[in-house]
Amino acid sequence: MTGMPRENRRFLRACRGLPVDATPVWFMRQAGRYMEEYRALRKKHSILELAKTPALACEVTLQPIRRLPVDAAILFADILLPVETLGLKLRFAPGPSISNPVRTDRDVARLNEATAAADLGCVYDAVRLIRKELGGKVPLIGFAGAPYTVASYMVEGGPSDHYKVVKAMMTDRPDLWHALMLKVRRVTAEYLKRQVQAGAEAVQLFDSWIGALTPEQYRRFVRPHSAWVLAEAAKWGVPVISFGTGTNGFLEDFAAAGGDVVGVDWRIDLDVARRRLGRRPVQGNLDPVLLFSERKALKTAVRDVVARNHGRNGHIFNLGHGILPGTPVENVDFVAKCVHEMTAR
Amino acid sequence: MTGMPRENRRFLRACRGLPVDATPVWFMRQAGRYMEEYRALRKKHSILELAKTPALACEVTLQPIRRLPVDAAILFADILLPVETLGLKLRFAPGPSISNPVRTDRDVARLNEATAAADLGCVYDAVRLIRKELGGKVPLIGFAGAPYTVASYMVEGGPSDHYKVVKAMMTDRPDLWHALMLKVRRVTAEYLKRQVQAGAEAVQLFDSWIGALTPEQYRRFVRPHSAWVLAEAAKWGVPVISFGTGTNGFLEDFAAAGGDVVGVDWRIDLDVARRRLGRRPVQGNLDPVLLFSERKALKTAVRDVVARNHGRNGHIFNLGHGILPGTPVENVDFVAKCVHEMTAR
Repeated sequence: MTGMPRENRRFLRACRGLPVDATPVWFMRQAGRYMEEYRALRKKHSILELAKTPALACEVTLQPIRRLPVDAAILFADILLPVETLGLKLRFAPGPSISNPVRTDRDVARLNEATAAADLGCVYDAVRLIRKELGGKVPLIGFAGAPYTVASYMVEGGPSDHYKVVKAMMTDRPDLWHALMLKVRRVTAEYLKRQVQAGAEAVQLFDSWIGALTPEQYRRFVRPHSAWVLAEAAKWGVPVISFGTGTNGFLEDFAAAGGDVVGVDWRIDLDVARRRLGRRPVQGNLDPVLLFSERKALKTAVRDVVARNHGRNGHIFNLGHGILPGTPVENVDFVAKCVHEMTAR
Repeated sequence: MTGMPRENRRFLRACRGLPVDATPVWFMRQAGRYMEEYRALRKKHSILELAKTPALACEVTLQPIRRLPVDAAILFADILLPVETLGLKLRFAPGPSISNPVRTDRDVARLNEATAAADLGCVYDAVRLIRKELGGKVPLIGFAGAPYTVASYMVEGGPSDHYKVVKAMMTDRPDLWHALMLKVRRVTAEYLKRQVQAGAEAVQLFDSWIGALTPEQYRRFVRPHSAWVLAEAAKWGVPVISFGTGTNGFLEDFAAAGGDVVGVDWRIDLDVARRRLGRRPVQGNLDPVLLFSERKALKTAVRDVVARNHGRNGHIFNLGHGILPGTPVENVDFVAKCVHEMTAR
């Protein structure tokens, strides 16, 4: 890959707020459906097969690394893998669906907490294989769903418009909710720790659905558990990114949970986010829909994000959410190149 | 209705930031599916029949006034009525669907801008009838969709996950987007003005989907048009409420568009919103999902919103978004009573 040092440490340095030769860039869901190579594999394998077969997970993780000048690789997996090893029946139809959601004390009691993380050996094997294949070219990011997002799937049984069942559990059975979150948070931390032990050089916690909550619900029912995972992760010596969407009403509360880097969505100006986050490194926040635009408009939008960083250290360029299916891969490539050119020091 | 003065001016006074005897309360979608009386009418009539038949629109508007101690009535209508008179084919299946969306110069050119507002005489007749039937008991709020939300339906042809078509038009054909918004904004202003002339005592602009945008997209492609409508409305002598969801990343920008009162969603603490909005009256912001909770939790949540207002003038209690189908009507009643009791001066 032209123009990249053999050992690319931009991403890891930016996570620590250190000076970099150019702003690092990677894309949430950079391994996925928008790539022809991925769609070809998906014709032969289900999402869960790809995620649970180390050679396939490795191949999918590396596809964007071969095609795009990104500064980090992210493990291909699904945030719901631990839900399966916890004992729930997960399928994709095509969205995730759990046929035995968690609703009662008995449901919480019988979750396989002790073995759920250990049973994901396929993921750790994939991490080891990817590290070997990457050969130090770019760092590898491991990840997990944040406790709220994972627990909300477990309780609702799938994606939800309003999270009525989750919120009912929080308000009517707070003891049950916290019992569930205690289990989920321990599994989440162990799952991430094992990824790091296998070779992940950074980890990201995805709280994709946290924006469904009021700030008060977040502080009472979620933050203690996210904070616990993030405090555990802080012990492992790798940078930790805490990403959420819909957090702009309570970004300070969200950031207070922890993480070296806070990921923000596209509904806030990057300079406003940086001001509200103080000295914390920040990741984001191009609108993923803009990747469908023509070059000129796309470049203007990239420049807007870059300019709002005002040349400060501690910025990792990314989208405000994952790459959408149908996104032209050449536009993703164009954005990564723009960021490097615009920020070269 | 017990405990309510014959002429209830709490709502109108709060919109102006004036002292009130208790915080006024009304609920977005207070006339709707969660009420048995409404569902009974819906068995016989479509949504569009209800909205376009003055006697039926009046009946639906009054149903919550009979049942709940709310301090304002809101016209029963649909934000997409002007879309029909603009010349688009609208149906509910069950969500709104437009079979001939606006995509080209020709599509924009042939919108019936000159007659779209005048052709909604059924709405103004409903307003007159409702005012007569209300007999001064509570004020009547008229409303319209904000230009972005209406235009986004017109372009996408229905609700959208990512607003890809709208955003593509903004970035690739800004001239076309602005031409469309100029038409929509003029129709919106005339539609609201005619509601006021027919007797609406306040108006609310609903920008329900504005949170899909980046702050920059909002400032460049939307705010000039919202601001124009809000500046027009400021001339009519009635309070104007500007409501949006997903605005918390750029609430100051949203508020800068205008309106006497800013409506906020549930993803921000009310005290934080008030601080960010300066001296502006604010409307909100109980999480609609909490209306499904048991009484104790519900009361705690209501108290939290009320407490965060710190007894200041200029608060209108409402939800952070509309009442959800299936909400127990007795919980809505309970919340209204709690607000009045907690805030009685």
